Formats: sequence, C-alpha cells, structure tokens
Amino acid sequence: MTARATAAATPAEATTGKDAILRAARRAFTQRPYAEVTIRGIAADAGVSASLVVKHFGRKEELFNTVADFGPAAEELFDAPLDRLGRHMVLTLVRRRREQQADPLLRVVFSLGNHDERSLLRDRFHEQVTGRLASLLPGPEADLRAELIAGQLIGLGATLGLHREGAGALATAEHLADLYAPAVQRLVTD
Amino acid sequence: MTARATAAATPAEATTGKDAILRAARRAFTQRPYAEVTIRGIAADAGVSASLVVKHFGRKEELFNTVADFGPAAEELFDAPLDRLGRHMVLTLVRRRREQQADPLLRVVFSLGNHDERSLLRDRFHEQVTGRLASLLPGPEADLRAELIAGQLIGLGATLGLHREGAGALATAEHLADLYAPAVQRLVTD
Repeated sequence: MTARATAAATPAEATTGKDAILRAARRAFTQRPYAEVTIRGIAADAGVSASLVVKHFGRKEELFNTVADFGPAAEELFDAPLDRLGRHMVLTLVRRRREQQADPLLRVVFSLGNHDERSLLRDRFHEQVTGRLASLLPGPEADLRAELIAGQLIGLGATLGLHREGAGALATAEHLADLYAPAVQRLVTD
Repeated sequence: MTARATAAATPAEATTGKDAILRAARRAFTQRPYAEVTIRGIAADAGVSASLVVKHFGRKEELFNTVADFGPAAEELFDAPLDRLGRHMVLTLVRRRREQQADPLLRVVFSLGNHDERSLLRDRFHEQVTGRLASLLPGPEADLRAELIAGQLIGLGATLGLHREGAGALATAEHLADLYAPAVQRLVTD
C-alpha cells in the first residue's frame, strides 16, 4: 500500500487560535450575561486580536450562535428509531467525546453557575435538546421523561470528564452502552 | 398543640454573609487552581471583609475543606441497604436539593472547566464519592459502575437545575424516584 499525503495540512496555528477563541467564547457566554460579553474580552482571554475573532466567527451574535448551538448535536443524538434510541444516544455521545475531544451537551452545565440570570445557553438547550426530545417521545409525561434523559446524557459526559483516568476511560463505547443505555431506553419507551 | 418559638432566630444578615462567602469560595476553588485562590479575593467577591471570612471559616485550607467536603453528603446518599440504594440515593438527592436549595454533588462539575489543572475538588470527589461507592458495590467492575452511578446522580441534579421551571420541578421526589431510580438500582445490584 502506498500512502500519500494529498490533503493540505490545516495550519496548526490557525487551528489553535480558533480553538482558543471558541473556548474563551464558551467560558464568556456560559459564565456571564449576554449583555456583558464583549468580543474584545473574548479576544483578550484567547490571546488573539479582536479582529481575528471577527474574521473567524463574525460579530458577537454570530459567535454566540456558534457556541450555543446544540442543533447539530441533537440531530445526531436523536437520529435513531425509538426502540434503539437509548443505545444510539449513549454510543453517539461517547464516540463524539472521544473523536472530537468535546462533549456535545456538557457545556450547558456551566450556565448553572448563573443562578439569577436568564441564560440564553440554557434557553437554547431547552428548545433544541429537551424540547426536541420530548416531541419525539411517545406516551405520558414526555416532558418529564425528556428532562430525565437529558440528565442521564449530561451525567454520562460529566462523569467521563471527571474520571479521565478512571474505569470509564478504559471501557469501549459498546461496553459503556451495555451498562448505561438500558436505563436511558427505559425512559424512552416505558 | 402549643407551638413556642424557643430557638433564637439566626440573624438574616449573618446568614446572608456566610452564604455569600460560601458561594464565592465555591466559585474560586472550582474555577481556579488552589494556589491562585486568596481569602482576599473571595472576600471581595462576596462583598465582605477578609477578616469576616476568616472569622466564619478560618484560613484558606479550612475554607477549602468546608467547600470541598463531599463526605457528609456521601454518607447520607449511601446510607441504605444495597437492594434499595438506588431509590434512596435519588430521594435523598432530590430532597436535599429542595430543602437546602443546594445540590450535594453538582458543584464538582464546575471543576470540568479546568482542563489542564489537577483539581483538588475532583480528587476529593473521586475519594469520597466514586471510590466510597465502588467499595460498597458487590460484583464485577465496581469502579466502572460507581462512575456511571455518580454520573446518573450528577445528571439528575444538573437537569433539575437546568429546568427550574420544567416538569421535574413540579414532580414529587417519590415520582422522580419511580422514574429515575430503577436505572440507578440496575447499576448497583446487576
């Protein structure tokens, strides 16, 4: 087999800068009210210029939408027949965490720090994750069951993040699904 | 029945100051490396003097131990026979959240923001919650099951916090346990 490097490598610097901006933006939007967040502050936190932030992500509203959008993650998580949805969600969450080094849902927990603030990130989560899931669930108490399933998924991401060198880190996605998914499935179709 | 108010009422101001200090300390210790946290900074964040912080909670190490201690919560959560532990944990968590307006475990998620830092709060959680629970579980893969159960409990607190005006807020603790506890129990005794 002949291996050829045909694709141009993404310049490492550009990637690092973009990642730093996204991390800084997530921190800012999850920890402070929207009105207090500034592109200048995000740029300073990321160690780049404000113009670079705008170049990569546009103005504040566009950057917020990039950071706060749970839509693509929800679409992927909920894309399975109901009788296999529990397992599909667990596998998708674990694989996305491992492949992309980022949890599809977990960042919403940082909005829990704002007790008093109405949080746009939380609103987005309600609409794109819990609300969407509730609309898919058959049977009674779909809203309550969707909230509890969202909790199970957030909790799975949280515990994998908290035990980075623990038993969960060594387990395959399939094995994690064997243990964790039946509980999720029970709230989907029970 | 004759009701008599015998206990002296806690002065509201003192309570508010203490609560503000505890909140500020939690924020500080979860979001910054231990070495960077100062009593002065916590006091400023809480809007009180540094001497008041020391008066109520002692020096930095004592304050950290107060904030980071999951021991009493774990003792209460795990205090039931194994065949009823799942339901007991869910009921205890929901009741503690509602009675004390504070989740017994959830603050550990804020340490997830420190990707690179070793977190004393996280270490404490491993030792007092996951490790303790693993030591109680019979059967194979106790460490992995304890991590997943910890995830279920964190996730329950997270989703109740994220949906403060949702269906979970209206449900009784017993009803939440009916829906959520069988899944937890499955990881305890399966």
